[in-house]
Amino acid sequence: MRATVIHGPNDIRIEDVPDPVIQYPTDVVLRVVNACICGSDLWAYRGVAQRVAGQRIGHEFLGVVEEVGAEVRGFAKGDFVVAPFVWSDGVCDFCLEGLQTSCPHGGFWGQVGSDGGQGEAVRVPFADGTLVKLPKEAAGDEKLLPGLLALSDVMSTGHHAAVSARVRPGATVAVVGDGAVGLCGVLAAHRLGAGRIIALGRHTARTELARRFGATDVVAERGEAAVEAVKELTGGQGAHAVLEAVGTEESMRTAVSIARDGGAVGYVGVPHGGSAGVDIGQMFGRNVSLNGGVAPARAYIPELLPDVLSGAIEPGLVFDRTVGLDGVPDGYRAMDDRSALKVRIAF
Amino acid sequence: MRATVIHGPNDIRIEDVPDPVIQYPTDVVLRVVNACICGSDLWAYRGVAQRVAGQRIGHEFLGVVEEVGAEVRGFAKGDFVVAPFVWSDGVCDFCLEGLQTSCPHGGFWGQVGSDGGQGEAVRVPFADGTLVKLPKEAAGDEKLLPGLLALSDVMSTGHHAAVSARVRPGATVAVVGDGAVGLCGVLAAHRLGAGRIIALGRHTARTELARRFGATDVVAERGEAAVEAVKELTGGQGAHAVLEAVGTEESMRTAVSIARDGGAVGYVGVPHGGSAGVDIGQMFGRNVSLNGGVAPARAYIPELLPDVLSGAIEPGLVFDRTVGLDGVPDGYRAMDDRSALKVRIAF
Repeated sequence: MRATVIHGPNDIRIEDVPDPVIQYPTDVVLRVVNACICGSDLWAYRGVAQRVAGQRIGHEFLGVVEEVGAEVRGFAKGDFVVAPFVWSDGVCDFCLEGLQTSCPHGGFWGQVGSDGGQGEAVRVPFADGTLVKLPKEAAGDEKLLPGLLALSDVMSTGHHAAVSARVRPGATVAVVGDGAVGLCGVLAAHRLGAGRIIALGRHTARTELARRFGATDVVAERGEAAVEAVKELTGGQGAHAVLEAVGTEESMRTAVSIARDGGAVGYVGVPHGGSAGVDIGQMFGRNVSLNGGVAPARAYIPELLPDVLSGAIEPGLVFDRTVGLDGVPDGYRAMDDRSALKVRIAF
Repeated sequence: MRATVIHGPNDIRIEDVPDPVIQYPTDVVLRVVNACICGSDLWAYRGVAQRVAGQRIGHEFLGVVEEVGAEVRGFAKGDFVVAPFVWSDGVCDFCLEGLQTSCPHGGFWGQVGSDGGQGEAVRVPFADGTLVKLPKEAAGDEKLLPGLLALSDVMSTGHHAAVSARVRPGATVAVVGDGAVGLCGVLAAHRLGAGRIIALGRHTARTELARRFGATDVVAERGEAAVEAVKELTGGQGAHAVLEAVGTEESMRTAVSIARDGGAVGYVGVPHGGSAGVDIGQMFGRNVSLNGGVAPARAYIPELLPDVLSGAIEPGLVFDRTVGLDGVPDGYRAMDDRSALKVRIAF
């Protein structure tokens, strides 16, 4: 089969790789229908996150089951499924508690020895614990596919930010980061009943989508000026819930600073700035909480899926470009130079 | 009147100071019956926290109302009351939400221009928003006084750590810090129904009190060895709830490391190590939350008071020495060299 392979910084190639086969009786092999490129893939693309030359890449995909291991109970050939961005055994303490990202048998698509999502097929370990079934008819529904694909990571991660920030009905919410995760955070906060949603961002196309997703206010400033702007919008108090969807020192500092006393920052941006932006003195004096981390998408997909199927939420709108597999290297370039928000790969 | 005054590092004196008088119609003046010395007072004593020479000190006290401002509704001369360690107006958004420590009109006993708790009398601003009434007969009850006094800070702060760490019935809890706050954290976790409480500490007198307060296990190791010991006690998983009651970089690092994936650290130790101990990479990957800060004692006292009055909890056991006002400088020395756990001042 053909799949996306990363050889080094800025070196993404489409190559012939071995066809995946069932290795354990709990595996399935699926044919990928849609995949996409994640903002976090760019950390590898830019050389900030290390990868072994020749490693696969991509962790968001949905597809059709082609082969089924002997011990798989929940899936059959022909099932249409979405995969969360980590696999998990489905039976350990953490999986049963809904924190599948901490499964001791879990793993991340594209890690050495595994298939990545940006390829024609994927061997899925622990299929019963990992995959979520979708309606078969959706597999050919170009209107639904983007939203279902978004459940694999970006929408689930935005939801995790909102849940971690303790968004409640009527709450004032601020979202730091106008990437696809931040935008899905806006959508998730709106879905959870936020009374007011302040989106921080300066790219018009993105802030327009933020408004479509439910943002009531947009703050284009950054740093201290952004903090002042949010304070002014909130009677000096800040936001009850702040979603941090970037992961840099500056974004974390902004997020803590615009949180209302007693409020919470829900952070899902992979931290690349260490803890320097975590102003513990300010957090202590104002009782600002810090919750979040890697999103247990597997736990959230069943909750979010009905709203995607009904059209109540349309997280697929974060995709502003679609490519075929051969277009993936261009897709990385477009996301890297921010000419694309998020790139979908249709096989 | 006579009161404790700090002139510089290691320079605590008892001096004649002006008698407090009603300055605003919302004030009361009370005669202090009991006060105490806080671990956080030692930061000033050691010169780590700056004080203006001649500033008052002490923020934990209970006493009898002597004079009442014209607009005070809830208190009368002769009432026996306990003060939380900050005053608050009782009517702002934050006071109404139970986060009195964020009251914009609030203040900290001993701040420049105010009375400290370690003196014969105190002018209490916003008495209706600040004070909590106690049974009059308790004022002379030497058995009850220490526990009631503990509500002003140390027990309320331990409770805040437990609440912030999300202690639930049956939870496995770990407490970092064997000072009076950590011990009250053990007591608070026990009161909230923790199934197992691991106290980290190496001073036998303190760990024995921890066991009396409900600790089921004691870990004497520190640093990496402590992390290993807690992991071994918890099947490799760590504690659902970790109470951090020290505030140093090392203690925060330990607290984060012994939290179970998906668990929470409730921190109440005044941070003196910056955020370096907040291992955000580890927190992100394992979804460990960080909650806490300065405890809204005013919100907790009404909840904890009945259990102190009934004897269900005895936080007053953290006091292992009682002095008169003239003994306060000795009390600081004893707490500084750890020959006393917590010193009570009886007037």
